[in-house]
Amino acid sequence: MRKGTLVVDEVALPEPGPGEVLVKTLACGICGSDLHALRHAERFVENQRRVGARFVMDLARDVVMGHEFCAEVVEFGPKTERRLPVGTRVCSTPGLVRSDGVRTVGYSNETPGGYAEYMRLTESRLLTVPDSLSTERAALTEPMAVGLHAVNMARIQPDDAPLVIGCGPVGLAVIAALRLTVARPIVAADFSPRRRALAEELGADVVVDPAAHSPWTQWAEMATWRDPARAPALPAWMPGPPLRPAVVFECVGVPGVVDQLMANAPRGTRIVVVGVCMEPDTIHPMLGISKELALQFVLGYTAAEFEETLGLIASGAIPTAPLITGRVGLDGVAGAFTELASPDRHAKIIVEPWRA
Amino acid sequence: MRKGTLVVDEVALPEPGPGEVLVKTLACGICGSDLHALRHAERFVENQRRVGARFVMDLARDVVMGHEFCAEVVEFGPKTERRLPVGTRVCSTPGLVRSDGVRTVGYSNETPGGYAEYMRLTESRLLTVPDSLSTERAALTEPMAVGLHAVNMARIQPDDAPLVIGCGPVGLAVIAALRLTVARPIVAADFSPRRRALAEELGADVVVDPAAHSPWTQWAEMATWRDPARAPALPAWMPGPPLRPAVVFECVGVPGVVDQLMANAPRGTRIVVVGVCMEPDTIHPMLGISKELALQFVLGYTAAEFEETLGLIASGAIPTAPLITGRVGLDGVAGAFTELASPDRHAKIIVEPWRA
Repeated sequence: MRKGTLVVDEVALPEPGPGEVLVKTLACGICGSDLHALRHAERFVENQRRVGARFVMDLARDVVMGHEFCAEVVEFGPKTERRLPVGTRVCSTPGLVRSDGVRTVGYSNETPGGYAEYMRLTESRLLTVPDSLSTERAALTEPMAVGLHAVNMARIQPDDAPLVIGCGPVGLAVIAALRLTVARPIVAADFSPRRRALAEELGADVVVDPAAHSPWTQWAEMATWRDPARAPALPAWMPGPPLRPAVVFECVGVPGVVDQLMANAPRGTRIVVVGVCMEPDTIHPMLGISKELALQFVLGYTAAEFEETLGLIASGAIPTAPLITGRVGLDGVAGAFTELASPDRHAKIIVEPWRA
Repeated sequence: MRKGTLVVDEVALPEPGPGEVLVKTLACGICGSDLHALRHAERFVENQRRVGARFVMDLARDVVMGHEFCAEVVEFGPKTERRLPVGTRVCSTPGLVRSDGVRTVGYSNETPGGYAEYMRLTESRLLTVPDSLSTERAALTEPMAVGLHAVNMARIQPDDAPLVIGCGPVGLAVIAALRLTVARPIVAADFSPRRRALAEELGADVVVDPAAHSPWTQWAEMATWRDPARAPALPAWMPGPPLRPAVVFECVGVPGVVDQLMANAPRGTRIVVVGVCMEPDTIHPMLGISKELALQFVLGYTAAEFEETLGLIASGAIPTAPLITGRVGLDGVAGAFTELASPDRHAKIIVEPWRA
């Protein structure tokens, strides 16, 4: 990323510092946040500052993005333990740990990300990719860990009835993680037919086109009590059958969606905000107050969740194959960013820097 | 309330319907929501509509407000059980239960509230006031129940470090309820010296003037771990000692406060929104996302919490005497509304409709 555009150019080979490893990028997924960082770079940096980030991108200098990667160990820096043989395939959370703080791999001028042939990573964060797992599916560990974390933060209870709003990569990761819980049925909504089909492949039981039906109407039909004896008693004048507790995952990340959910959600709904809305947003607090709604904002994952996700992808418990809809070399990254702007064409495009 | 002003006039005696009781109002607290309903009547009604209220005030007709009351049984309507003798002092949640829904006593054209000599209430909701409890302190059951409910909804854990923002009647009720939990110290902030003094009387351990110090700086000093061995390990580069989880109660209810809390709160903070903000509000979702904040909106109380609060006031576990700073008859209600606009003069003014 150079002055607001993507260019392919030669840059210096990153030098691994103490406790760091030079790796060769084998595959790197393109994330929606990267599209946002390119298109709204100033706002992205302003947000980094607003949230108190210690290291903020200097937009006058180059940034090599890419934080969803699978790579191969090439060379060890000083003060490393060197337990993994050179050539080992690895994944890692995208953070370079140094004594003065953690730099995000892919959103920093000094720590190049996976849209380049080489990166440096912190040795202690490397996870070995099982032999049985393909490189490109291993590269999906990062985005799928986001879904696992969001679902963990939702503290799903046995009677919860989930609803996923938005079936881009984030929503799909949430659906895959919900599949590992007892919460059923999984209702998911997206305007795009392609994304709805992917949602079904990933494990949604019911998909809704919000242009045709309200997701909440569909949800209400599915959210009746499986065991009617467990339903709370309702006052006689309240219409319809009692419904199970709603847990809705906001996976869109544009202004207005949270308020719309607050307007339509039933009383007591927990709204898990997974979509990354970088603009200011307006809400009507009275909607939240009158229905005692809860908003849980979430971000990223823990190291343990990241490692668990790699294992779940390897075992097939989290399906990933349907997500990969394109592969490009370095010359194709700029074009892939353009393609990804239309939701009906792609889910994940994988960058393979060494692709001929 | 007649066309946006408070007037004293003769209205028809309310007739108790089936299951209803005619009561004589003995004391009724003035609530901040009433001030809001008078000053921003259109917006109040618009909000009633927005949140799907079944019965909305018609502002062209009279409304008798007042929903924090203690009353005396006068006469029974048809189909009543009549277990309480005439003359019994009672409290009740301010809802008239009818087959077509619940009307709010005090915010409805048909169900006059406590700023009048008589009301009708639902018999099954009546709670007897213990003889030892004064009428005016019994009238504080409703506002103090709001605090108990907010603290219950916060699901306080033993290590939580609470912060109360705003020490009007809502914040004071939260402080009194926090006093019943293990959460210590209780830090509370308000610009008004009078309210800070009341906060200390109600049980705050530390009070902060936000004009002089950031409440969060003060909070952080108090929120170190009591048993340092329980503190989570922090990365070496993170400054200062680790802090206990923050639970902040927003008891102000004006636009901008939630976003300000989101900007200043430490990672993982739970924000309990108790203040009733009736205007649209702007938040920066990235603040919530980057720190994984949770917002829990709360309103009112359950019937069980209301009953528990009456008992806690009677036993003295919830202190209430310092809250009552004024008493007026019906002729004094309009003036009391004006007085209450300045936070430094009063906490609760009690209306005594039969006062000479």
